[in-house]
Amino acid sequence: MLDTPCLVIDLPVVDENIARFQNLADTAGLKTRPHIKTHKLPFFAKRQIEAGAIGITCQKIGEAEVMVEGGLRDILLTYNVIGDAKLDRLAALARKCTLSVTCDNLTVAKGLSARFADEENELTVLVECDTGAGRCGVQSPTDAAELASRINELPGLRFGGLMTYPPMDHAENVDKWLSDAKQRLEDAGLPCPVVSTGGTPNLDALPAFNHATEHRAGTYIYNDRSLIARGACGVENCAAVVKTTVVSRPTKTRAIIDAGSKALSSDLLGLEGFGMVREAPDASIVGLSEEHGIIELGDSDWDPAVGDVISIIPNHICVVTNLFPTVWIKDQNGEMMEMPVAARGMLR
Amino acid sequence: MLDTPCLVIDLPVVDENIARFQNLADTAGLKTRPHIKTHKLPFFAKRQIEAGAIGITCQKIGEAEVMVEGGLRDILLTYNVIGDAKLDRLAALARKCTLSVTCDNLTVAKGLSARFADEENELTVLVECDTGAGRCGVQSPTDAAELASRINELPGLRFGGLMTYPPMDHAENVDKWLSDAKQRLEDAGLPCPVVSTGGTPNLDALPAFNHATEHRAGTYIYNDRSLIARGACGVENCAAVVKTTVVSRPTKTRAIIDAGSKALSSDLLGLEGFGMVREAPDASIVGLSEEHGIIELGDSDWDPAVGDVISIIPNHICVVTNLFPTVWIKDQNGEMMEMPVAARGMLR
Repeated sequence: MLDTPCLVIDLPVVDENIARFQNLADTAGLKTRPHIKTHKLPFFAKRQIEAGAIGITCQKIGEAEVMVEGGLRDILLTYNVIGDAKLDRLAALARKCTLSVTCDNLTVAKGLSARFADEENELTVLVECDTGAGRCGVQSPTDAAELASRINELPGLRFGGLMTYPPMDHAENVDKWLSDAKQRLEDAGLPCPVVSTGGTPNLDALPAFNHATEHRAGTYIYNDRSLIARGACGVENCAAVVKTTVVSRPTKTRAIIDAGSKALSSDLLGLEGFGMVREAPDASIVGLSEEHGIIELGDSDWDPAVGDVISIIPNHICVVTNLFPTVWIKDQNGEMMEMPVAARGMLR
Repeated sequence: MLDTPCLVIDLPVVDENIARFQNLADTAGLKTRPHIKTHKLPFFAKRQIEAGAIGITCQKIGEAEVMVEGGLRDILLTYNVIGDAKLDRLAALARKCTLSVTCDNLTVAKGLSARFADEENELTVLVECDTGAGRCGVQSPTDAAELASRINELPGLRFGGLMTYPPMDHAENVDKWLSDAKQRLEDAGLPCPVVSTGGTPNLDALPAFNHATEHRAGTYIYNDRSLIARGACGVENCAAVVKTTVVSRPTKTRAIIDAGSKALSSDLLGLEGFGMVREAPDASIVGLSEEHGIIELGDSDWDPAVGDVISIIPNHICVVTNLFPTVWIKDQNGEMMEMPVAARGMLR
């Protein structure tokens, strides 16, 4: 009997999810480069590589350090790296693995160059493109080609391609953007060996990314309630649940669980409620304090008792794995193995 | 130069905040029992004791274990403790400090009794009361007296008083509720040595808690944007900021920082935006992905450059301290000391 709250991962479901992404990408003629932010475990990163991935994606240097330590050897770090402390760690990493990074502005490129000019090997730098998601990224194909050209001129750096996190449901626009940028790079005589797209919500759109060479996805390995809501998976494809105990039944219609925002996070991702109760999908997790979740039972026949252990599919699993020091991995025989979440809490 | 994102605590402001709570409680004739969930550090818990607190409040056994290890000796654990694993740890804790717990139902009370019946000392159990906050707690003064009576009859347990987390702006109703419950306890011949209220948002209401004996508050030690919004403090009373670097300026009106939901959390607490930029309070942190914050500058004259380090006052500081492995404490001379957040991530 596991003590609660705890995070339990269904290994057979993980393996199915890994195979599904790889198959979708294979069919679309894309390589895969899974984002490790969802699991934060070398154990699963290696499984993704064994299934056919060409490498992994990390967003923090601390994550990449853990992955290299765990035996991974090809890493794309999708982040603007700034400052001496991080640049020194980046240079040390680059000596230990095949490393590429992204960049969307000249200040960052110059910082990378200053640090890598005297390194034995050039650092491969991809240009991050804002194809509509409104996060980081250069704003136009012209800007992408301009920055690529500047990167290529800077000592210690080699332009390596384009990277974008495409907005959902705009695959054709994104592909047009990338096509335009590639044309401008070609006009400038710059080879563009990699065009990296991303996102689990975009998995069904892979065939539309004609100009991409690889796809980064993270959440698909576990899936979550937000992906169920988007039609990207079913309940049966969710590999991760938070096990939690009913600690109070203050009223006939209210149950309190020992999973609050410290276990489920406050991420709503546009949904109502803070997770799905597997035992009663119609019940609503209407509120979270740090250590308690408040479930309104509504018209549900479900009548949990104090002490009952239930399973919650979180809204957003990636932030949940960041909250648990360990996960329990359940294999096909029901055997449980506890594993520290090695790259948890890597903020830098 | 600190690497970002990081959490920096201003020690003189902390000391002012500790003194203020103690003074407010002294004036109202209440003892203080600070909740350590905000700082999660024995270092600050001891400072609260030195300032006059009679003990501390924890919500998880893991937090209490860290505090006992750190030298704290009087702990109220405001949680329904369930299950053998936790009960064994609770019994071990009770041998090392003055421990009391709360409970709002008979199932929990019976579990506590079964474990403590053979211990040398009885466990003190307070009845948690739902005085309107809609979380845990018995629903009426009659139910409180009934559960208190049952607790007192159970082997190994001693009824110790009443505990509630009062809703904001209802101090008089709460005091009436507690007064009624105390009367029923008196009618039943049950002494009620402790009546514990809580909440930083209720600090101005302390004089209205005539039937309370002690108050638990946590957030007051650091304060945050939610408390500024409620008028409970000013910007100058906020002791904790997240230092973050501007990593991208994709457009004239958008800046991207290296603090996302893994640093600031997604807690909104009813506010718009995910924190206050100290350098530009009119700028809006409109979105967070896990590793990036998106700031819309709007009409602000503020024009941060890539590489600039800025300070964010989080919406909800308690969940933020749970996300950072260490904090930097800045003393009155500007000297910085890095300290592990010892009771971080204690989910059980």
